[in-house]
Order: sequence, then C-alpha cells, then structure tokens
Amino acid sequence: MSEKKMGLAARLRDEKALALVRSAEEAAEIIKDGMTVGVSGFTPSGYPKAVPLALAERAKGGEKIKIDLYSGASVGPEIDAALTEAGVIKKRLPYHTNATIRGKINEGEVEYIDMHLSQSTQYVNYGMLNKIDVAIVEGLAITEEGHIIPTTAVGNAPAFIKNADQVIVEINLKKPMSLEGMADIVLLDNPPNRKPIGICNPADRIGMPYMECGFDKIAAVVITDMQDKTRPLGEVDDASKEISNNIIKFFDREVASGRLTNSLLPLQSGVGSVANAVLYGLCDSEYENLTCYTEVVQDSMLDLLRSGKANMASTTALSPSPAALEEFLDEVDFFRDKIILRPQEISNNPEVVRRLGVIAMNTAIEADIYGNVNSTHIMGSKMMNGIGGSGDFSRNGAITIFSTPSTAKGGKISSIVPMVSHVDHTEHEVMVLVTEQGYADLRGLSPKERAVKIIENCAHPDFKEELMSYFKRACDSSALHTPHILTEALSWHSRYLDTGSMLEE
Amino acid sequence: MSEKKMGLAARLRDEKALALVRSAEEAAEIIKDGMTVGVSGFTPSGYPKAVPLALAERAKGGEKIKIDLYSGASVGPEIDAALTEAGVIKKRLPYHTNATIRGKINEGEVEYIDMHLSQSTQYVNYGMLNKIDVAIVEGLAITEEGHIIPTTAVGNAPAFIKNADQVIVEINLKKPMSLEGMADIVLLDNPPNRKPIGICNPADRIGMPYMECGFDKIAAVVITDMQDKTRPLGEVDDASKEISNNIIKFFDREVASGRLTNSLLPLQSGVGSVANAVLYGLCDSEYENLTCYTEVVQDSMLDLLRSGKANMASTTALSPSPAALEEFLDEVDFFRDKIILRPQEISNNPEVVRRLGVIAMNTAIEADIYGNVNSTHIMGSKMMNGIGGSGDFSRNGAITIFSTPSTAKGGKISSIVPMVSHVDHTEHEVMVLVTEQGYADLRGLSPKERAVKIIENCAHPDFKEELMSYFKRACDSSALHTPHILTEALSWHSRYLDTGSMLEE
Repeated sequence: MSEKKMGLAARLRDEKALALVRSAEEAAEIIKDGMTVGVSGFTPSGYPKAVPLALAERAKGGEKIKIDLYSGASVGPEIDAALTEAGVIKKRLPYHTNATIRGKINEGEVEYIDMHLSQSTQYVNYGMLNKIDVAIVEGLAITEEGHIIPTTAVGNAPAFIKNADQVIVEINLKKPMSLEGMADIVLLDNPPNRKPIGICNPADRIGMPYMECGFDKIAAVVITDMQDKTRPLGEVDDASKEISNNIIKFFDREVASGRLTNSLLPLQSGVGSVANAVLYGLCDSEYENLTCYTEVVQDSMLDLLRSGKANMASTTALSPSPAALEEFLDEVDFFRDKIILRPQEISNNPEVVRRLGVIAMNTAIEADIYGNVNSTHIMGSKMMNGIGGSGDFSRNGAITIFSTPSTAKGGKISSIVPMVSHVDHTEHEVMVLVTEQGYADLRGLSPKERAVKIIENCAHPDFKEELMSYFKRACDSSALHTPHILTEALSWHSRYLDTGSMLEE
Repeated sequence: MSEKKMGLAARLRDEKALALVRSAEEAAEIIKDGMTVGVSGFTPSGYPKAVPLALAERAKGGEKIKIDLYSGASVGPEIDAALTEAGVIKKRLPYHTNATIRGKINEGEVEYIDMHLSQSTQYVNYGMLNKIDVAIVEGLAITEEGHIIPTTAVGNAPAFIKNADQVIVEINLKKPMSLEGMADIVLLDNPPNRKPIGICNPADRIGMPYMECGFDKIAAVVITDMQDKTRPLGEVDDASKEISNNIIKFFDREVASGRLTNSLLPLQSGVGSVANAVLYGLCDSEYENLTCYTEVVQDSMLDLLRSGKANMASTTALSPSPAALEEFLDEVDFFRDKIILRPQEISNNPEVVRRLGVIAMNTAIEADIYGNVNSTHIMGSKMMNGIGGSGDFSRNGAITIFSTPSTAKGGKISSIVPMVSHVDHTEHEVMVLVTEQGYADLRGLSPKERAVKIIENCAHPDFKEELMSYFKRACDSSALHTPHILTEALSWHSRYLDTGSMLEE
C-alpha cells in the first residue's frame, strides 16, 4: 500500500467515505442557484478551498449561480474573492475581512449582515435564517461513524452540518493528523431545553473531538492539499507598542489595587497588529500562569504559550501568519494539550465569558468623547470588516478594553471624535479606552467626566484643543447629561469626506 | 404583649436586633458627607424611606452632606426627589425614573451613570466603584442570625450589604410577613471562582430566602410603616393596544412557522403602558403555560398569573400600581409559589437569559432606519431614565423586540429617524421593531433591506415619504453598506430643537 493510500486510510476510516470521494468539480455540482451554503472556517483558517474555487469556475463559465453564503467568520480568498469575482454571492454573513467582497458590499452588490458571531450560530439553530442547503466543511478525517474531525478552526461548522441537507467534506492533507484531539465539540440544545455549559476554567473539556454528521448526510468527499491563506502578520509599529505598554500599565494598576492577581483573568484578544503587540508585551512582563479564552490564536498567543507565560488557550480558530503556521504545524505535539478548539457558540458564549470574567481586548475604528465605539464603519456608511466577536466578549467580560491609534491616514483622521458615526459598543460597556497617548479608565465616570478623561488621556495633541472646544461649547448649549451640538457632532466626518482631512484648514 | 409587640417579635427575631432599634434621625446620623451609600429598591419598590427623608432634613437644616448614591434601579421620591432637593446627591447610578433628579442630571448638577443593571452588581463586587460605606435596606424581618429578609424588591441589596461597612435596616410594617419565602437569594463568587448558575427553568430556586448580613454589620434598625410610592398605571391608549396586537401577530407567525410553541419562551417585559398592553394582550390570547423571566412584575403580569395563562414569574421587583399593590398584598398567599424574587445580578444575568432563550420586550425612544435603538436620550443629550435592564435582556435573549409609538409630541416627533441621536441597542441585536403601524422583522436582513422594511412597516405616514427620500438620496451619494448623508443624518433632531417639530414647514 502506498504511503498516500495509508495516509488516506487514517483519514477516511470507513469504506463508505472512500466511496464518496469526488473531484472538486463534481462536488461543486451539488450547489445550485438559489441555495444557502454554510462553510467551515474562521479567520482565514480551516475553510474549504477546492469546492468554492470549482464553483467559481462554473459561474465564470456562464452558468447563473447566486447563493447566500454563511461562514463562521472570515474565510480565504478562495471563497470571498473567487466567488465574489464570479458574482456568485448574493448575501453574506456574519463576518469577512476580504478586500474583494468588501468592495462589492460597499458598492451595494453583495448584501452583508454583520452579526455577533455567537449569535450567528443560534440564528441558524433557531431557524431564523434560511435553511442551510449544503454545508462545505474542511476536515482532518471522517470517522468510522461518518463524523468529521475539524482541522484548524471549528467556527459554525458543527451547526451548519447539523442544519444542512447535504454535506461536502474537503479532507485537507496539508493539515497533519496530529491536530486530532485538539477540538472539543458540543452542540447546545435550543431553549427551553438548554442546560448550563460546564466550563468553569478555560481548560475544561466538555465535548467530543469530532463534529457529528453521519454518512447519510455526506454527499461528497474531496481530497485537497492546500494551505490556508492566513493573514500576514502586521508590523508591530511604535503606536502598537505604546498601546501595548498602556494596556500593561492599566493591568499593573489593577493588580496594585488588588482587583486583579498576577495571573489576570482569561484573556481575549482581537486580531491585528495592536492585538499582537499587546500579547507580545505580556510575553516580556511579570505576569504568569495566564490563560486565554478567545476566538482566535495568532502568532503572539502561540509565543505566550511557548514562553510559558500562558498555560493554555481556548479558541475557535488557529490563525497564525503564513510563516508561523508552518512552524505551528511542526509543533502540534507541544501545543495539543495547551489549545482547545471549540465551536464559536461556545468560545464566544455570553454565559462562559461572564462566568470566567474574561478581559476583552478589541480594537476600535473610532471612539467618541463619551466612550461610544465604532468598530465597523468608515465614516458611518462604509463597512470595514464587521463586529466579529468583539460584542460577544465586551458585553459580558469582566473588563472591556478598546484600543486604537489616536489618528489614522497620516494624522488626517482623529480616532477620537465628538460623536462616532456608527455605534457598535455603547457607552454602557466600554470600560477602558487606549491609544498610544495613554489610557482612560471610564469605569464609574459620568459622560462628562469621561469626556474630559478621554480628551486628556487618549486624543492626539493635534485634535485635543478642538475636541475640548466642542465639549465646552456643547456644555454651554445643550442638556447636560451627554452634551452635544447636533449640527456639529458629525462635522468632523463630513469635513473629512469633503476635504480629505478632519483638520481645520 | 400587645399585637404590635408580638408582630415585632416576628420581625426582629433576636434581642440583638431589638437593641439596635433607633429613630430614623438617629440612624441617618451614620451617614456622613463624602460617603457612598447603597440602597435597596428597584422600580419604586422595596426601597428605604424614613432614613433618606431624615437625611434630607439634616441637609435642609444647613449641614453640608454630599453622597454618591447607588441603588438597584429606580427608587421612590423619598430618595430621588427629597435628597436631590436637599442637594445631597453628588453622583447617582445605575438607573432612575424620578422627574426631580432627572432635572438636576440634565442641568449638570448631579452626575449620573447609566449602567446595564446586571453589570452594576459586579462593578460593586469587583471593586470597580467606590467602596460602599453604608447600605440602607428595607426588610421584612431580621433573622435570628442577623440576616435580612427582603420585602418586594431584591435588586442590588445583597451585594450592597456584602460590600458595606455598616448596614441600616428599615423594617417596614406595611409589608406583610406573608411575603417571606418569595425571595431566592444567591451571591455569585467573583471570577475566576464563579460556578454555573443552576437555573434551567424560570421556576428553579437556587438560594436562600434571606440576604446574608449578620449583626456585626447592622448599625441601626428603624421601624417604618410607609407604603412604596409605586408608579401609577399608565393608560393603555390606542397606540399601545395596536403595538400589543402587532407583537402578538408576530408571535402568531413564529408559532405558525414552528420557531415557537404555544407557550412561547420566558417573557421579559419592560415597564410602562406599552409593556402593560402587551401582557394584557396575552391574557386574551390563545397562548398558555407562559412563564416570565424578567426584572419587574407590574399589574398586567399579575393578571397573567391570575388568569392562569402564565404559570410563574421570576423577577427582582414587584411594582404594581398603587391600587394593584394593595390588592396584591392581600393576595400574597396566591402568588407566593408563582413569583420568585431574585437579586438583579441573577434576574438579569446574561448566562441565564441566553440559556432560557428569553423573549426580551423593551421600549425605544426612537429607532433609525437601520435598526439602531435609542432608549435613553432625548435629542441626543437629555437623559430620560436610563437603559435599565433592557441591554441585559436584548443582548442575550432569543428574540429581542423593541416597540415605540411611531410619533411623539402630538405627531411632531417621528420615532423613526434617519439616524438615532444616541445608541443603546445596536443594529446587531435589534431583531424586531414594532410601532402601532406594524412590525418589522429584521432578522436575516442587511441594513438596506432593514431600511425599506422599517420605513414601510413602522414609520408614521406623515414621515414615510421623507424617510424614503433620505434613504434613496443616501443610496445615491454614499458607500452602500449603511448609506447615510452625514450632514443630514441628525437634521431631523436639529429641526425639532429649532422649530419644535421634525415636520418640514
């Protein structure tokens, strides 16, 4: 028996699976115009590649195919770019990070629903969205019973499989079998029959290492050998380093006050260079026995585990940069008992986030002087990526931190504005705001007290005076709980749209 | 022994409690300038009365006393009016409904922090707010061990007692001893030691009938005989009835689709005439075996229990109108096994709300065409009451419904606007919007799809055309995910502030 065949036997553990092997093109034929398709994948990781590419080819060949496409979170260009370019995607949810589909969303050619990621699962389970016709799921292997072992992300795949009429499995030979056992899969019953989720520590395992499916549902198995196109690591620039320093200063003060211990509380961290910088900062800190309860593990969190500073990470996706991914896949044995991959309904669940007291660290596009945060819309209308899991964590965590460099576009945009042009996180749940200038601890402050602290501690010097002028004039001319001048509140954004700068000429 | 003395023995069950009896004036002396005081009470119910009134008298007598005042939610005029008029309140949280303090908040004389009610408890427990110097708590009785049996509201009292240096207990003889046993008190450990909350059904009891205190902490006991000044019942007007009909139409459709059963899911309902109308509507409906998992029980919910349509209600406060309160107090025996009074950290807990799949029904001040809801601020600056528990429920419930009459101020204000002037509930968690005109089911819709549905189904005819004009012009001139014209987005509010009407002249 050839090595490849031997390998395949470990991956397709029953003859029924072998008998279902098809080409990507054959499998893609299962998808018809008008269908709703759910794909595995979360933060370009663990998503199917060959079948979406084959589907895009069909559409490019002239066939009319429009589908609604649901995922866990962002997926790779083989889906969001290829299918968008081929005009296949009619509606997309719940999150994306791809430039091609972003363009079409903002041109109005793709309808996009930007959802709390944990809620996307229950929308599917409660029947609040379209029925899933086909689920396309990347797997490590198919068990003897026809269940699917996930690769490097779980996301919404278990729910899509459960709710789909047919399932296409992409068995990806690039993902080593040593990943088996990292996943911990549990499906929640719908209310009123739901029971407590028994996670009292990020390390608690409560489920099975595979996603339930069964051969009855599997319509095709496609063998692939394609690496995830994960995000390259953003450069940790000076602003990110300063933000990281400011967050650690805040932690230091919390520990000094007795509110946190030297092990902090389970950390959640968003994606991107600021998030990476914060965790790198912790690698060099005095903190120890850290844990993570988060939705994505990037390079810096792997380093936190390698350094021994963190004991374990619970997540729904592994999404290191391309370079770090290769390294990780060689070291899976080291990480296997330190990482748990959960469905996003569990990784992001309000119940668990609240119980564990997660420290939620997410990024803002802009924040206003009263502490409202916009994390999705450029100038109020243009979708950037989406809210992702930030709301799941910030609304339920013990401490919620939002960070952003104080300016964007080379200093022409102030990230601190009189009024944000879109609200994703309200004044009620933004506890700490951080820029490279400093941090503002907003807990226990009224709106006017917040305004002074945010302007003084977080705004860029180029905009401080004008922000304070707005605040003072608003205090002279408006009701005094949250003073605003409505004719001026969004004028900074309008000025930018008109002149390309928020700075007064 | 006189009947009064016999009664007192049932209420002060150890001589230590009897020895602590003081006049309200003596007890009020415990409170000093600069202190932080936590009071029991939630939705003018179960709050202390005599000691706050005595404190107000001291201040009116010329003594300088400024305190930070924390409560569960709204309390009666004996606190929020009397202490405000006497200039005693410096900072107030987490909710109020009193016109006197509202005035001073909007004049900038009282700093107010409008918080998610469930979070207010953990802010206290995590040490994120001032240390509580004194807790003033209304009780039915003090047990042999010095623990306090709550009256008609639990709210934050257990957490205030736990965190206070000293506790003053007002034993209110107006509250019948038959209320004993209704409360179910549990305090949650702080993370990382928190365990699951074992409520899988609104009827589950998990705690004790008293709030832990102990004689060491009790500094004074004051005997009072004063009824709660609960809110009079708002008239159920035609708009409220139509809103109720529309919500029931929505329920009917959910049942027909198989997404809900004839028992729905546990109901949460805000306060006020619309909330009352909705529940009255259910009294006359085909629904049965209903349950409630909510923060306040008003007249209509008592009727729902009386009618047998609902089996039980879990709440943190009983706040019927003055007339219904008298009736209720005579019928406590009927209600005792049908109502559970919980701390607000439990009644509003995201963990339980998510698990039970609560149907969250709350009111909006205004909503915008994309489904963002303002429930706190008039014209962006002026505080009305506060977010209360609406965020606790809407961010975690299975179905979230926001309702408002489509106009206010005799038709001069449209409750549907291009952009809300403040956001308390974002587009990500507003599922169904209801006015007397109809309902808009926003689930599974992109922002532009939502806009059309909200304008068509919910807006008042007087404003429909202008709203559609705004939406269409925004679609012509902006990025097309959430089309806006920023120079015009808040112009309806500015017009109202200038002319007293949102209608174009």
